[in-house]
Amino acid sequence: MESAIGVLVSQFKAYAGCDGSSDTLSREEFHKLVTSQLPNFVKNAGDPAVIDQLMSSLDENSDGELTFLEFWQLIGRLASQHGGFSQ
Amino acid sequence: MESAIGVLVSQFKAYAGCDGSSDTLSREEFHKLVTSQLPNFVKNAGDPAVIDQLMSSLDENSDGELTFLEFWQLIGRLASQHGGFSQ
Repeated sequence: MESAIGVLVSQFKAYAGCDGSSDTLSREEFHKLVTSQLPNFVKNAGDPAVIDQLMSSLDENSDGELTFLEFWQLIGRLASQHGGFSQ
Repeated sequence: MESAIGVLVSQFKAYAGCDGSSDTLSREEFHKLVTSQLPNFVKNAGDPAVIDQLMSSLDENSDGELTFLEFWQLIGRLASQHGGFSQ
């Protein structure tokens, strides 16, 4: 499990580091991450409206940037769906 | 990222399926999972008191079982520490 967690952390950092704050995902970075890393887990990942909606549902303090823990809530939701757990 | 998420889900299921409800972790299952899967991320994982404290901090509805999403909060915290993000 630790190596899988390490993969998620390093991938988050790789995308978060593209522009601006290296510890948070901008909308653009989030879009890139979702389309390239989560193409099967997020439906219609290519649709900008889907990305906007997802981003605003996660961005708890509405600052236009996703922290790691905000992003983690999405992964948890996707993982839970993927695993077939009741929500 | 999707394969790493898949690993976390399947490992959770493998431990959750040992006894009782196959979708949740009992204290015993949680203890086994932490000591064998997260030995470096959780300090003093072998100490029952550490496990008890961790379990009660995660078990939001205090039913003695951890759902996947309750467990996910722990992984997020560990991942965040591992990644050196501010909490």
